[in-house]
Amino acid sequence: MSEAITELKIPTYDDVLAAHERIKPYIHNTPVLTSTYFNGLTGAELFFKCENFQKAGAFKARGASNAVFGLDDAQAEKGVATHSSGNHGLSLSYAAGRRGIPATVVMPRTAPDAKKAAVRGYGGRIVECEPSTSSREAVFAEVLAETGSEFVHPYNDPRVIAGQGTCSRELFDQVEGLDAVMAPIGGGGMISGTCLTLSNVAPETEIYAAEPENADDAYRSFKAGHIIADDAPQTVADGLKVPLKELTWHFVENHVTDILTASEQEIVDAMKLTWERMKIVMEPSSAVPLATILKNRDRFAGKRIGVIITGGNVDLNKLPWMGND
Amino acid sequence: MSEAITELKIPTYDDVLAAHERIKPYIHNTPVLTSTYFNGLTGAELFFKCENFQKAGAFKARGASNAVFGLDDAQAEKGVATHSSGNHGLSLSYAAGRRGIPATVVMPRTAPDAKKAAVRGYGGRIVECEPSTSSREAVFAEVLAETGSEFVHPYNDPRVIAGQGTCSRELFDQVEGLDAVMAPIGGGGMISGTCLTLSNVAPETEIYAAEPENADDAYRSFKAGHIIADDAPQTVADGLKVPLKELTWHFVENHVTDILTASEQEIVDAMKLTWERMKIVMEPSSAVPLATILKNRDRFAGKRIGVIITGGNVDLNKLPWMGND
Repeated sequence: MSEAITELKIPTYDDVLAAHERIKPYIHNTPVLTSTYFNGLTGAELFFKCENFQKAGAFKARGASNAVFGLDDAQAEKGVATHSSGNHGLSLSYAAGRRGIPATVVMPRTAPDAKKAAVRGYGGRIVECEPSTSSREAVFAEVLAETGSEFVHPYNDPRVIAGQGTCSRELFDQVEGLDAVMAPIGGGGMISGTCLTLSNVAPETEIYAAEPENADDAYRSFKAGHIIADDAPQTVADGLKVPLKELTWHFVENHVTDILTASEQEIVDAMKLTWERMKIVMEPSSAVPLATILKNRDRFAGKRIGVIITGGNVDLNKLPWMGND
Repeated sequence: MSEAITELKIPTYDDVLAAHERIKPYIHNTPVLTSTYFNGLTGAELFFKCENFQKAGAFKARGASNAVFGLDDAQAEKGVATHSSGNHGLSLSYAAGRRGIPATVVMPRTAPDAKKAAVRGYGGRIVECEPSTSSREAVFAEVLAETGSEFVHPYNDPRVIAGQGTCSRELFDQVEGLDAVMAPIGGGGMISGTCLTLSNVAPETEIYAAEPENADDAYRSFKAGHIIADDAPQTVADGLKVPLKELTWHFVENHVTDILTASEQEIVDAMKLTWERMKIVMEPSSAVPLATILKNRDRFAGKRIGVIITGGNVDLNKLPWMGND
């Protein structure tokens, strides 16, 4: 850990600005939606930054594109690699495809076929491992050794954090006078990028992270003052199961106002209500902020709050309010 | 029929302009979305006018608002009434609520509780009838006699058609150089409004109507040259079961380029694919245009096409790709 932190450079706001210039041709400046209904329900004024409309369906296209398009030609030729069965694997495949370089994604052989198909749909190559950390690490090490690919971590990577920081930079231009910005927290990449940008352009804006009660390691880390990592937490918000790492902990520790949690039922209810009333498809993870605003009405009433809808990649055959098998 | 047509005035483009001024405070100028994915798939350039984001969840808020806000005070005091278990009932309740006048909606007692709750949520009053045309007509006549309310027909009403015409007026301002505009057709209110506007502002633009094969009365009417009405057709696109009436037939007969149809499976596939790729919630009816574009690739490739996504009110507990009970 201590060795890693000396290697990993904490990104600066200049890195966010450079990232934005670099990735603009490959990402959407996503729209901000409002809802009279949700404003009435919460007593707050909510501004939803819709990264579910982002390329590859999630904000992760920002960080992945920044990493991919920042590589020099020699390294780019060898490609990029990551281990992720979620949006980062998709996004890295998307970005590599746009640059025309190889992307390898190590994924458990037990991952859903739909996720594998999506990665391949964006041109990524899948190498399967067993569903264990030791197998994943061994297989991933082989991939790196064989291909010489550049490892792009889903969140503990300064290029990725600087890329995610472009989201609240856009939001800051789109909505004036926000009192607070809220995003879900898993590994902390989006929250870190948000902290990085807002602490520079709007240091008075509060930053809230929202987390499932069932995977509240960031909440407990925040209260304890050091990283606490859980082993395989179970939550419907499957993008939020991963722990903080040193870079993201740096931003959480120094810039986050508070971390709030919501139960599984509260998350599913907020997700379904958003689909019904706002007519947008979003992931369970994206519903966690609204769920926490709804249960902390007094804290947020009267405030102007930016809410980051992080992604929209869901299995439409298996929606969480329909019961699971 | 012949008596009715002498009473019903065919609306003009000036009526559309007046409607737009009248309803602007109560409706959204809905966004136009594009999709690299669907452009690739169809070979066309598609511009989706998203009325699923409209007030009350569908374009019907336009026509209903125009009717409600066009009433003089004496009539307004007595309220408005309609028979509809779908979006028009919702929209009329919404518009009446905004003006602060009563709305009565006659609905079969067998209509889903969710639809009744939605009407009541917008402040509408429901009067139940038996699920038959004779009962509906008898109950509705009683309502009109008792309340003196103004009847606002879901589509065969010049005020409603002029209101729906504001949608393509916005689209015309939002997207330049459209070769064609396509909308689903049921009773024909949206298509008529589209014809009314485009025949005035862009007469060279082609106008396509899209219809379920299972409820293809407008298609057969168009080919036969007179109105053919079906008895209770069955289709997943439940907003499109109603027949053309004299006013809407006027526009279809004179201004529609062609009517294309799609099967139930094609509609459901297009709907699911839109949710997956565009991350928007839309009704089965709204997927019919895309379904017909996908199956008529050669006809539309290379063209710039406005596609009207008519609404987003769906039962999330009962999605058509999940099987029905």
